[in-house]
Amino acid sequence: MVEPLRLGAIEAGGTKFLCAVSDRDGTILMQTRIATTTPDETLGAASAFFTKAAEQLGALSAFSIGSFGPLSLNPVAADYGCITSTPKAGWQDVNLLTHFRCTVDAPMALDTDVNCAAVGERLFGSGQGLDTFCYVTVGTGIGVGLLINGAPHGGANHPETGHIKLPRAPGDDQFAGICPYHGDCLEGLACGPAMQARWGVPAETLPADHQAWDIEAEYLAGLCATLTYTVRPDRIIIGGGVMQPPMFDRVRRALREKLAGYDASMRAIDMADYIAAPTAGPSAGLTGALALAYRTMTRQWPMHWAITDTSSITAEAVHA
Amino acid sequence: MVEPLRLGAIEAGGTKFLCAVSDRDGTILMQTRIATTTPDETLGAASAFFTKAAEQLGALSAFSIGSFGPLSLNPVAADYGCITSTPKAGWQDVNLLTHFRCTVDAPMALDTDVNCAAVGERLFGSGQGLDTFCYVTVGTGIGVGLLINGAPHGGANHPETGHIKLPRAPGDDQFAGICPYHGDCLEGLACGPAMQARWGVPAETLPADHQAWDIEAEYLAGLCATLTYTVRPDRIIIGGGVMQPPMFDRVRRALREKLAGYDASMRAIDMADYIAAPTAGPSAGLTGALALAYRTMTRQWPMHWAITDTSSITAEAVHA
Repeated sequence: MVEPLRLGAIEAGGTKFLCAVSDRDGTILMQTRIATTTPDETLGAASAFFTKAAEQLGALSAFSIGSFGPLSLNPVAADYGCITSTPKAGWQDVNLLTHFRCTVDAPMALDTDVNCAAVGERLFGSGQGLDTFCYVTVGTGIGVGLLINGAPHGGANHPETGHIKLPRAPGDDQFAGICPYHGDCLEGLACGPAMQARWGVPAETLPADHQAWDIEAEYLAGLCATLTYTVRPDRIIIGGGVMQPPMFDRVRRALREKLAGYDASMRAIDMADYIAAPTAGPSAGLTGALALAYRTMTRQWPMHWAITDTSSITAEAVHA
Repeated sequence: MVEPLRLGAIEAGGTKFLCAVSDRDGTILMQTRIATTTPDETLGAASAFFTKAAEQLGALSAFSIGSFGPLSLNPVAADYGCITSTPKAGWQDVNLLTHFRCTVDAPMALDTDVNCAAVGERLFGSGQGLDTFCYVTVGTGIGVGLLINGAPHGGANHPETGHIKLPRAPGDDQFAGICPYHGDCLEGLACGPAMQARWGVPAETLPADHQAWDIEAEYLAGLCATLTYTVRPDRIIIGGGVMQPPMFDRVRRALREKLAGYDASMRAIDMADYIAAPTAGPSAGLTGALALAYRTMTRQWPMHWAITDTSSITAEAVHA
């Protein structure tokens, strides 16, 4: 008999924490959504949820967190497990691993929200069958998850590719950018709030023929060119609120121009295949975090899981 | 008894091919240096050398090539094994693997010259003990080798990080750049020949206080920032003729400014340790290629090798 396995996971975002417990097959047994307020309140409610889950379902076998960041992911660093220099008030230097180690008794993994979403895309979406790909999200920030040889890439810590510098797009040499650290890094010029600051209205309300979209496509194609030259992925998946459907062809065209016929293998890139939308659904990050918990137990990805639809997750907040 | 093992390797460069055969312990048994002229002549001479070596020393157990590129390294591509869009006359679309498979009877590996040099640095130089690092060479071009979790990174093909675009350095907005594909990509602005085109004299003759070095440091720090944000390596090793000793502190200072205090883990970077010179000697690429051959046989890196000094390799050309 296969012993029952209980996997716990959190997708920790700046507005909400999605929490779930699944069985060995990825079937969600309990779930909740908790508003991200103060660390005490939000982490306390999350711990209470998992305590209740363990009472009802049995002890957790493994636990995983996919979180907003930047995070300290270096196991030998003094601040391992911390959210570090986030602009989110009250959340600087909050140690997620320390908190949950005191309240959840299970082997624990921590990775970025974008790496967990990339894992979700690898298992159930546009990353299926790929060894090495990038997952980009363009919304309130610009995040990049990176799977190399099928596993989330860490390095000395997690990458922060949103903060690379690119040449200014034609027609965009006045706007100073909004990154508090770098001003006009990619995120400072091209995330959703940057577009709002640049044009005075929310990005999603700009008409489809507004020059803002050409400038945005130029920056995102610049990101894709840098990822192509640096990592040479099999695919770049781009999602997030700013990435409306008409943007895909704009980014593909601009990227093709940037590569400029260099290298046979880059000439051979099929842009329609190379620049793709995510398809694992809004729960890709939570599902990826559950898969990370599964892998913590078994050293394998759960290739047998069906798509786990947690998009109907409840809004009920659980308090201790 | 351990069976005798014969490893063959080539460091294939634009001016010379270094060829060597070693035993299981990395001791060089035969070696030669062949001028890079036409593919027929150079590859013919290399094959003749390995044929003679096999007669004298016994059949090769494994064979590896570290080559200039760009290369097709995707095993399922039709041109797998080819040098593709090189500017070097006569060498476009030359298939190295096809040539040597006809003349050398051994399992065969192919990687970039910079990835092989990175392997050499991993085993015997500034990459020892590191999981994930970059090896940058700034000379006739700008090449970047990448070891991730101790193994050379390939992806869909090898990266070509020299061709990323960066913002122009202050004071360098007139020079068009020399890259035949991209004009003012990093290589087009900052490789040795670009410096010569920009300033009218060879880079190594420019005085130490010339503004050229500030501009060069700005571009190389831009590369290091991009590598830091994209890959988050443990170290960036920079070598090549342009990288004179005084450049290291300039690059470190400029990189520190660019990171601008972002992310605790980046603030904690010790620049003197993070930006380092190569220390495995001029034969790092050939030694790395031999190590790659060893790994092809054994699935392991030869951690027991002493440093293999092939810097005194002979100038004798071997002809069939």
